[in-house]
This record gives sequence, structure tokens and C-alpha cells, in this order.
Amino acid sequence: MKPEARISSAVIKRMPRYRRYLNALQKKGIDKISSREFSSLTGCTASQIRQDFNNFGVSGQQGYGYNVAALHDGISAILGLDRDYTMVIVGGGNLGQAIANYTHAYKFGFVVTGIFEINPRLVGLKVNDIEVLDYDCLSAHVREKGTDIGIICTTADNAQEVADRLCRAGIKGIWNFAPVDLVVSEGVAVENAHLSDSLHALAYYINKGGGGGP
Amino acid sequence: MKPEARISSAVIKRMPRYRRYLNALQKKGIDKISSREFSSLTGCTASQIRQDFNNFGVSGQQGYGYNVAALHDGISAILGLDRDYTMVIVGGGNLGQAIANYTHAYKFGFVVTGIFEINPRLVGLKVNDIEVLDYDCLSAHVREKGTDIGIICTTADNAQEVADRLCRAGIKGIWNFAPVDLVVSEGVAVENAHLSDSLHALAYYINKGGGGGP
Repeated sequence: MKPEARISSAVIKRMPRYRRYLNALQKKGIDKISSREFSSLTGCTASQIRQDFNNFGVSGQQGYGYNVAALHDGISAILGLDRDYTMVIVGGGNLGQAIANYTHAYKFGFVVTGIFEINPRLVGLKVNDIEVLDYDCLSAHVREKGTDIGIICTTADNAQEVADRLCRAGIKGIWNFAPVDLVVSEGVAVENAHLSDSLHALAYYINKGGGGGP
Repeated sequence: MKPEARISSAVIKRMPRYRRYLNALQKKGIDKISSREFSSLTGCTASQIRQDFNNFGVSGQQGYGYNVAALHDGISAILGLDRDYTMVIVGGGNLGQAIANYTHAYKFGFVVTGIFEINPRLVGLKVNDIEVLDYDCLSAHVREKGTDIGIICTTADNAQEVADRLCRAGIKGIWNFAPVDLVVSEGVAVENAHLSDSLHALAYYINKGGGGGP
């Protein structure tokens, strides 16, 4: 698998989904798959799948298809999932705690080292052994631990101030659940979790009388 | 805008995102946009955007581009966002409460009528005026109210049993946050909210040294 040159963000969006299906195939003991079979599984067209995989130098063999394990590992490497990440959660309310539980349940190389909260009544609590710490200690914590990812689970009003503080402390990426567009320092990655997109797709399938995305 | 014939699930996945950007453009008072400008905004290629819009009979005018309001309303109609939906949440833990807060904050035509919980200590609580009710009352509630959407915020172990109950009660769609693939009755729509996909895309952008998806 050759290192990728320029891959569009639309392709990157599809990679985690491809990887999730390849993972499920591996668990079922399936070791090869054609682009057509993969198409009916993922809902992407076979030609798009071939194009996407071509982007990083993988092509299926005529009459054989793709090697599931090689493709899974290749996508993992491209996404950077062959290493671990440390994370902090900012906002210890329901969503912050839900995300802490979620990452804990998955145990997939993303480790939360602290939940930061401005409300003194929450500070000192523990969520799955992760301590809720005072928001004033956020910058020092991120700097000391060289934290990779800051997860923003605050209200929309507070999100930009939190992002500013995370950027100044040297965060590498922000996973934003607040419904605002953030301005961040150059070199800081941002991914917005837009739950409404998923709900709107569901509305479509309800009106079609069933079915759904993968 | 002609009614769509067969639209692939990959296209449907992109529609809510297009709509979100069109919404933001409208708020900024921008009334037309070229596919090239829309491409740099959304990260999808201009040719893909043109193709996607062609799918439901919209083409931009040479030298003018697309009419933002018409496109926004057209996508809304296709997604079925020109009507309201009633929803129940099953699982009153952190995630269930976070989703209740989220839908409450957005006020976007999706109304939660009850949160259902098996733990008697949570039953009777209120989250933004939405009552936490006994799980045993779920089927009757869904039937009586003709509920559109069931949101599953339970553990993976319980999710299928909840889905079975929702289907028997006549639910039209399931928004599933539990990390399992559900089997549902014919005609019931399912959309899985896979938070890990978003986190994995973030990992990619961190390793690229910044940037991010829309």
C-alpha cells in the first residue's frame, strides 16, 4: 500500500465506515470480498469503492477481489489507528459522561485522562475511574501529558473559549460536539460530531418506508 | 425539483451535510453559490455535487450557480424535514439524557415524548420537562401516540430486545446508539449513530498535521 498523496475529505469520511465493515467481515472469518459484494454491504457504489481504494494504491484482483485483512490494516494505518491517543473531555455533564462511558466501553486506543468541569459540584467525581477535574487545571494537564485530543462537550456559548485554551496548551485535535463552528490555530485538526445529520438521514428512510444506511 | 427515482444511500448520507451548509449560507444572507464554491466549503468534489443535485432534477445555471434557498428547501423536502416527528428515548442514563437535551436545544421538528427506563430510581425524573417513564409502558405509549422514532440508548446487550419491542408496537424508525447491528421488521428504518467514525477521521487529520472535515 503506497502512501497516499492527496485524498479528499469526502474519501476520508468513508474510510472509517469501510474499516468498520472490514472489521465485521474479519470477525465472521471472511478473508476476501469483491467490490460488488462490498458495495451491497456499505451502500457505496462498486466504482466508488474501487476508486477510493485506488487512492492509496490498493486494487482488487480479477476473480478474487480484495484481501479483507490487508485492506483493514491498510485503512487503519492511513487513518493513524496503529497508535494510541490521549484525550481530555471538557464538560462533565450528561454528554461528557456519556462520551467517557463510550470510549471506555470500546477500549480502542483512545484513552481519556481527565474530564474538566467548571461546576465545583461535579469536580472530584469519577466516571469509569476517570476523575472530573477543575477546568482551571485544563491547560497544565494538556501540556504535561502532551494530550492529543480535546473533546468539547460544553454549551455552544462556551465552546470557542475552550477551543482557544486547548489550542494554546498545544492540543493536536478537537472533537467538537457543541453546535458551533470553531476557529482554531493552524495545525490543529477539528472534527465536528453532527448528530443531526444522522437523524435527518433517518427521516428520509422513514418516508421511504424503511431501510437505512449502514 | 422532480421526485427522486433511485437515490443511493451514499448520496442520502451527504444530503443532511449539504443542507447544513446551505442553512449556514442562508443565515449569512448568501442567495446563490457555484458548485466550485460549494465544493471548497463541503470538501466534496464539484462534479460529485453536480451529480448529487442532478439526482433529484436540480441543475445550476451557467454563470449563476445554484439558488441557495431553493436547494435548501428541496433537500429538506426530500429528507422529509417538512413535517414533524415524535420520538421516544429508551435508556435514561447519561447518553439518553444527553440526547434528550440535544433534541431539546435544537427544536428542529423532532419532539421527544418520553424517556423509558428499566431502573426504578430514574423513573419519575424529568429531563427538560420530558418525563422518565417505566420501560413496561413503552409499547402502550408508542402505540397510543403513533410514535415515529425510537432512540436506543441502552447497552449493546439490551438493544435487540428493545428494537423487537419497538417494532411490535409499530415504530417507523430506529436511531441506534448501541454498538450492535439490529434486526428489525420489514418497513422499519434504522440509522446507526457511529461516533467512532467521526473520531477515526479526526485521527487522520491529526496525523496530517491539521485540517478536518466539515
